[in-house]
Amino acid sequence: MIRVVLVEPEGEYNIGFVARLCKNFLVDELYIVNPRANISEAFRFSAGGREILEKAKIVNTFDKAINDVDIKIATSSIADNNGDILRKSIRPWEILPLIQGKKIALIFGRESVGLTREEIFKCDFLLYIPANPSYPVLNLSHAVGIVLYEIWKNRELLTNPQTSTISD
Amino acid sequence: MIRVVLVEPEGEYNIGFVARLCKNFLVDELYIVNPRANISEAFRFSAGGREILEKAKIVNTFDKAINDVDIKIATSSIADNNGDILRKSIRPWEILPLIQGKKIALIFGRESVGLTREEIFKCDFLLYIPANPSYPVLNLSHAVGIVLYEIWKNRELLTNPQTSTISD
Ligand SMILES: Nc1ncnc2c1ncn2[C@@H]1O[C@H](CSCC[C@H](N)C(=O)O)[C@@H](O)[C@H]1O
Ligand SMILES: Nc1ncnc2c1ncn2[C@@H]1O[C@H](CSCC[C@H](N)C(=O)O)[C@@H](O)[C@H]1O
Ligand SMILES: Nc1ncnc2c1ncn2[C@@H]1O[C@H](CSCC[C@H](N)C(=O)O)[C@@H](O)[C@H]1O
Repeated sequence: MIRVVLVEPEGEYNIGFVARLCKNFLVDELYIVNPRANISEAFRFSAGGREILEKAKIVNTFDKAINDVDIKIATSSIADNNGDILRKSIRPWEILPLIQGKKIALIFGRESVGLTREEIFKCDFLLYIPANPSYPVLNLSHAVGIVLYEIWKNRELLTNPQTSTISD
Repeated sequence: MIRVVLVEPEGEYNIGFVARLCKNFLVDELYIVNPRANISEAFRFSAGGREILEKAKIVNTFDKAINDVDIKIATSSIADNNGDILRKSIRPWEILPLIQGKKIALIFGRESVGLTREEIFKCDFLLYIPANPSYPVLNLSHAVGIVLYEIWKNRELLTNPQTSTISD
């Protein structure tokens, strides 16, 4: 079971795009902690993910979005190369093996300031999407898309190793 | 050398986000064929990719965006399971082996109607990002992000197979 958690998102386009991505990659639940943007504006960007946004659970504390899941994965555009390690750092393709049969939350931070240290500290892992070291900060919904794609793909390759087509 | 080509994009946010993604994943060139949105509005979404957007090459025909590259990869949300195969279908992780030392164009279609059959016919491969079969249509810039991430990641894993961290 996969839950996507957006913590205090600020852009209505990001909220809408994330709902669409949840539909594109069959996410089970979308939780939004204290949205800072107008959810009704977000529908303009949700396309086929409209229903996901209608059903999204809006909660008013971080804890309410994570306290009933087995594994909590925070995300950050800062890799752990400075010695200040709060949580084990993982990469997107390392998620799937962690979640077999478990309830997991994938947690994404504010556009402006990301997740707080306190929020990261409440999680089990810190996920970093590898990117240009001189500018690794992705837009929020693009980070969500990449993580969901990677889980979807690895699941598909696991079920059907012949998904590769180049050698047909 | 990687060039991203957007064909008649309609949303200024998509143009801006793609410029940002080109910076996140170190793309060499951004070409835009007949933009249907206001480029000056797109800067609001380009963040650290501002310079990429300033340097983007605006051309008025599809051919001008592709005629000087070695390999042309079209993209579509429709996989080739209907017998109507114009071009060999590939998946995102199959791109890297094709491009070693070559100049390639990754070509993305209109938000409303994608690429035309004529445009796809001018390309060497047709790339499909695997997603929910009942709703595989990603938003344009999210499709771009996933493809660029996959190339970046495979390149990094090739250079440094120890990028995996879970087993540390
Ligand atoms: N495993 C880990 N990986 C990356 N950063 C870690 C880390 N453990 C601790 N940190 C530190 O915790 C801080 C993250 S706090 C949040 C930073 C930012 N708002 C963001 O979300 O991107 C960083 O300054 C980093 O130095
Ligand atoms: N390279 C990357 N890896 C993992 N998550 C990323 C990412 N780039 C962006 N994100 C996600 O997108 C959110 C908004 S980007 C936050 C940027 C902010 N300036 C900061 O200091 O942290 C982040 O909190 C994280 O959830
Ligand atoms: N699953 C997927 N795989 C590959 N490219 C995709 C994709 N989903 C969206 N795209 C890209 O995003 C662009 C806009 S989506 C276009 C949708 C349009 N209704 C159509 O009929 O095609 C597409 O042209 C393609 O470049």
